[in-house]
Amino acid sequence: MTRTLSLNAFLHDTGHHEASWRHPDSAAERVFDIDFAVENAQIAEQAKFDAIFFADGPGVWSATPHRPAGHLEPITRLAAIAARTERIGLIATASTTFYDPYNLARLFSSLDILSNGRAGWNIVTTQSEAIARNFSLKELPSPSERYLRAQEFIDVVTKLWDSWEDDAILADRESGVFFDPEKVHAINHVGTHFQVEGALAAPRSPQGRPVYVQAGSSNDGRAFAGRNAEAIFTAHQTIEDAQAFYADIKARAVAFGRSPDEVKILPGISPFIADTEAEAVELQHYVNSLTVPAYGLAQLEGLAGVSLAHLELDEAVPREIFGEAGNVLDNNRSRLQVIANIVERDRPTLRGLLHRLAGARGHNVVAGTPTQVADIITDWFQNGAADGFNVMPPLYPQLLEAFTEGVVPILQDRGLFRTEYTGRTLRDHFGLARPESLYAADPTEEAHVV
Amino acid sequence: MTRTLSLNAFLHDTGHHEASWRHPDSAAERVFDIDFAVENAQIAEQAKFDAIFFADGPGVWSATPHRPAGHLEPITRLAAIAARTERIGLIATASTTFYDPYNLARLFSSLDILSNGRAGWNIVTTQSEAIARNFSLKELPSPSERYLRAQEFIDVVTKLWDSWEDDAILADRESGVFFDPEKVHAINHVGTHFQVEGALAAPRSPQGRPVYVQAGSSNDGRAFAGRNAEAIFTAHQTIEDAQAFYADIKARAVAFGRSPDEVKILPGISPFIADTEAEAVELQHYVNSLTVPAYGLAQLEGLAGVSLAHLELDEAVPREIFGEAGNVLDNNRSRLQVIANIVERDRPTLRGLLHRLAGARGHNVVAGTPTQVADIITDWFQNGAADGFNVMPPLYPQLLEAFTEGVVPILQDRGLFRTEYTGRTLRDHFGLARPESLYAADPTEEAHVV
Repeated sequence: MTRTLSLNAFLHDTGHHEASWRHPDSAAERVFDIDFAVENAQIAEQAKFDAIFFADGPGVWSATPHRPAGHLEPITRLAAIAARTERIGLIATASTTFYDPYNLARLFSSLDILSNGRAGWNIVTTQSEAIARNFSLKELPSPSERYLRAQEFIDVVTKLWDSWEDDAILADRESGVFFDPEKVHAINHVGTHFQVEGALAAPRSPQGRPVYVQAGSSNDGRAFAGRNAEAIFTAHQTIEDAQAFYADIKARAVAFGRSPDEVKILPGISPFIADTEAEAVELQHYVNSLTVPAYGLAQLEGLAGVSLAHLELDEAVPREIFGEAGNVLDNNRSRLQVIANIVERDRPTLRGLLHRLAGARGHNVVAGTPTQVADIITDWFQNGAADGFNVMPPLYPQLLEAFTEGVVPILQDRGLFRTEYTGRTLRDHFGLARPESLYAADPTEEAHVV
Repeated sequence: MTRTLSLNAFLHDTGHHEASWRHPDSAAERVFDIDFAVENAQIAEQAKFDAIFFADGPGVWSATPHRPAGHLEPITRLAAIAARTERIGLIATASTTFYDPYNLARLFSSLDILSNGRAGWNIVTTQSEAIARNFSLKELPSPSERYLRAQEFIDVVTKLWDSWEDDAILADRESGVFFDPEKVHAINHVGTHFQVEGALAAPRSPQGRPVYVQAGSSNDGRAFAGRNAEAIFTAHQTIEDAQAFYADIKARAVAFGRSPDEVKILPGISPFIADTEAEAVELQHYVNSLTVPAYGLAQLEGLAGVSLAHLELDEAVPREIFGEAGNVLDNNRSRLQVIANIVERDRPTLRGLLHRLAGARGHNVVAGTPTQVADIITDWFQNGAADGFNVMPPLYPQLLEAFTEGVVPILQDRGLFRTEYTGRTLRDHFGLARPESLYAADPTEEAHVV
């Protein structure tokens, strides 16, 4: 079988460019309107995308008022979108640090059942002191503590998703037996962070387990991804960086006894697309001109943990500034490295750097014709840098439509992307096997029903 | 304005009768099919019901295999149903003992926003030792501890729902200001159970706050309801019991400085309906004949905390048996009192008692013609026993349809029930005011954005 690529549409406010909402044709008034999200999901589905995706954090995104700060809870949003789509996968971010595993296992199981097998979970540990204070914590646990909890959290959730064997439900009217208690298993998990006795409240979902997605690129994050992730969202500015990451993650997966095909690597790409390259660049410049420097500065200072107040907007950023960045959260280091590389390589002014980051916070922003964008995707896909892409349109729906109408047909003509869905579940789209229940796999396991 | 009644459709598996799934025409194969729930919601909406409702507990319902034991998470289900309905209210049960307030506030806020103002929260404290063991707890907190936590939980959630003032979002493209930071408030809650700093992640929802619903009838539960609830689901077998409860709750609300109209009391009614009374009774007897006594016995023993193994199915239940019931969870007492009253009044055999409870676990099961059912509803509504009803069809969708096609038109002819929706939100349907934000109401409150 020819290897084909995966495409995920990362839905985010009015678009990924921080100033997209100021565009005269933006949906600034519809940021919280479910119909707006549904319309974008339907555009992606019509183009046969593998999935849509929402980022998340249980707190206000930003204190600076120059961008939409609020966001709805993504699992409920995707449940509503599931009712108005048929095939496209539905990936929600949720935090292992701030959820309880039993509650979260239920939410995703429910989403997988009501969408007929389209759910994916983007697993994050959430690096925000402010968010910790929304959850009765004095301080955020350290990255290593968060990853330890995350690993146990995943183990618990996996057991819960497996706790009803696939054939547990009999619904036998004649005998009056609805389910087979021997096939509903108390998981009896006793760990450091969690003690969870029961079976899940609901039967096994169509995918067995929703797809495990991950996005952390720190050292802890990569180790976690190699072990657990079936799809990875990642940010790279150059094919070389992407190739190095790709090789590293595949090797880590193999070290955990997995096949490299069991983990799909999807770098972000945020494309300005127009009929000519000049028009695409002009659009990018126009949207960049709508940015509010105070917003970008606050974001960058927060990321780097340093003040940039002494810098001039139209002077070159000193090379050492991000190399020195001292008080950096571990998970920010990889994104900061991307920025340090930009400064080293391209020597931008501060304003220029802010514009680079305004597009997609360090993800790869490109501007060109449909063919130019398709060429980049083809190049990365065919040269060990990507199994597909996390498509991050700067402006929704216009630049998603430019992608689905312009770029997708070229990828299809090249035989790199599906022209029809061949499966029904997100696992089908990603080419991932449906896992057997842990309990069905181990016949010596004692059966319990709660 | 004429006082009109509220109708809520309590969706539950194949129906409220525990043996309904064994009926040849039941939807036993569709218990977890979202389309089945949507179809029932649409029937209720076509009849202009105020709301639909799902019960919930984060664990398997029952260890005995004679009934559907699994159930999906209700907020995600209602989000999917919201996408395929227009006006009907959407009430989900969620536990204050096993959720975190920030997460739960987000889930309901999101449901309220994506449904355009139709969300309601049935607030429960969850009385189950088995469920506590799904959440790393060695034992269930006592009822009074649970209600203390519940009260603080509600206070936190209310502050979060109010944390964005209604006019916080400006979306002013010209100035580049998306929201007014002076109108997004850090709640800075410092309490016994919770310390929550932040504003909610999302703006204020269409209803301001989802509707607060409650169902506990214990002494703690009634006190809590009088203070917090805007709608109450309750179980009574006789109009006299219902009148006493009604008067008690309204008095408690008044004692908290509320108007008695601010709390709607909705007793359960589970009607077998047919063209003649004899046919309705025959249908009830037929469904009763499908019960598995072992299931009902296990449920009753669990409720009463005593063994019933020494009793014969076809002999009268001794009067003292439920009076003596020793090891009873506090929240079970009120339901157990209903059962003790049945035994005292009607002197049923054990089998007869199990059949009574099989219908709706102590709720009022009736059998009759549409007119007879409408007469009961009218009588209770006009004589201080109810502001409306929690309709619990024994078999879905057939006995919901019998209600909407038979009983609803009679209630409409009598001027007791709407023929069209006059509002858009659940608060509109229930005749409840939209609450102003706590922060808008108090101009001295300092404004913070997180």
